[in-house]
Amino acid sequence: MSLLIVGTVAFDKIETPLGKTDKILGGAGTYIGVAASYFTDIINIVSVVGDDFPDKYHKILQDHNINTNGIQVVKGGKTFFWEGKYHTDMNSRDTLVTELNVLAGFDPVVPDNYQNCEFLMLGNLEPNIQRKVLNQLKKRPKLVVLDTMNFWMDIAWEALLETISMVDLLTINDEEARQMSGEYSLVKAARKILTLGPKYLIIKKGEHGALLFDKAENCFFAPALPLEEVFDPTGAGDTFAGGFIGYLAKTKDLSFENMKRAIIYGSALASLTVEKFGTDKIAYLKSNALNERVERFKALVEVDIKQIEKF
Amino acid sequence: MSLLIVGTVAFDKIETPLGKTDKILGGAGTYIGVAASYFTDIINIVSVVGDDFPDKYHKILQDHNINTNGIQVVKGGKTFFWEGKYHTDMNSRDTLVTELNVLAGFDPVVPDNYQNCEFLMLGNLEPNIQRKVLNQLKKRPKLVVLDTMNFWMDIAWEALLETISMVDLLTINDEEARQMSGEYSLVKAARKILTLGPKYLIIKKGEHGALLFDKAENCFFAPALPLEEVFDPTGAGDTFAGGFIGYLAKTKDLSFENMKRAIIYGSALASLTVEKFGTDKIAYLKSNALNERVERFKALVEVDIKQIEKF
Repeated sequence: MSLLIVGTVAFDKIETPLGKTDKILGGAGTYIGVAASYFTDIINIVSVVGDDFPDKYHKILQDHNINTNGIQVVKGGKTFFWEGKYHTDMNSRDTLVTELNVLAGFDPVVPDNYQNCEFLMLGNLEPNIQRKVLNQLKKRPKLVVLDTMNFWMDIAWEALLETISMVDLLTINDEEARQMSGEYSLVKAARKILTLGPKYLIIKKGEHGALLFDKAENCFFAPALPLEEVFDPTGAGDTFAGGFIGYLAKTKDLSFENMKRAIIYGSALASLTVEKFGTDKIAYLKSNALNERVERFKALVEVDIKQIEKF
Repeated sequence: MSLLIVGTVAFDKIETPLGKTDKILGGAGTYIGVAASYFTDIINIVSVVGDDFPDKYHKILQDHNINTNGIQVVKGGKTFFWEGKYHTDMNSRDTLVTELNVLAGFDPVVPDNYQNCEFLMLGNLEPNIQRKVLNQLKKRPKLVVLDTMNFWMDIAWEALLETISMVDLLTINDEEARQMSGEYSLVKAARKILTLGPKYLIIKKGEHGALLFDKAENCFFAPALPLEEVFDPTGAGDTFAGGFIGYLAKTKDLSFENMKRAIIYGSALASLTVEKFGTDKIAYLKSNALNERVERFKALVEVDIKQIEKF
């Protein structure tokens, strides 16, 4: 089934305790698209770049069957650029440079041949822009997933609430769930956030895994794989989201049970992403590498429990 | 099979964002013993209290089939007392008062009828005291589990290393594993720590679950249950350890597979402990409460994954 992605396609420059890069391919839309491509064939993306965005990067997206017609190329414009430096714990980072460039004036246009998409992934962007894409679709997709961040809670709360009210599933991290709900307990936070519109909530906890909640108070937890070395956490959350929605688009099954599987596939891909800089590890992945990783996720929590007798 | 516990039996005074207590029953040995009592019948404890320690608290231990002959009662002495206040996140706390009292001169003596124990749980104490107990046993137990903390790494490193070298399984939290190994990655930390003597390592991550490692690089992860409300985290780690070793003592199976089950039972008990102050929730638990909790742990991570086809 067809998947439409809205998200940044960008340049990143990254420094971690283990090394640093020049300007490399980055952006939420990139990670989402590459990750989803391992599951679903028809991927369309709406984004914007400058004419400094090189052909080789366009080609990486096209190599993953991502239709790039919907990427506006602004003549004389410069592509969105982010530079950051991670601390030793890899959980915190300093943003050194953010140049919005062409993203500043981004007015998303959904091409006609992108209509009738059945899955929509709204990658982290200003909430009004996210909503603009949803409003351009003549037919509502079967599943609309929204990713956002604390930045928009701080400066565009009302717009964010309006966008959230229109989606099926929201993904945010644990700190953002606490900020959004005013509740420390993630169980209580989820319950409150699920009154805002979405039927499902995924709370991403980084190296501590991810939680899926629905309105019926079902709860699923996917661990993160304990890794020998995290090389570069950039894009892990977007890879997760891309793997998640890509798996759902492939399997066409929106049950809670299948969302659990989708979370494991998303987590497996994210655990691969962080083992190299940028998209290096996931750009050209072999299926056995992904399957082997999924097996490790299964084995990590597998336990055969018998009931103890009464005491 | 018989279990010997060495650990503090104490008074705690606790304040959390949700309430506060007077002096109540606390101590690592208490939580370990009460938790283990749900699995194994023969529990002996070596500890020390003052004659201010009330009969009703002795009785709580005895109600759990804990043989208290090995608890020295120091005449005119005062029982170890800890007072602490938890912050909103319940993950950090301030110690307001620590009165070692009779613990300061504690010289553990293993009574004759405690010999031949098959399982030994060395609760968090000064490492030389922990080792003194092990050295008094004429026959080495089948399994020796050691709990410790960063405090002893800071002030008694050499003594701690010597004690660690003699045990089968070490339990510490994630920050302590990082401090002990000098490695940020818990996989690397575990590998280093397992060269110090123990065959198994459990890394406790509090609200983020627990990891079990062995020397063959097997790894198991048990989640923590997302809770509506954490009322008082005191004793969660000791409850976990007590449930873990109690389950092993009951089932007499030291395989990695069975340790995984033991971790789930320990985690289930710990998730109950934190729902009330002190030992209130776990002191008089019904078996169906524990079984229901174990079922929730199983359901939390259960997922039926089929391999995706090759791409």
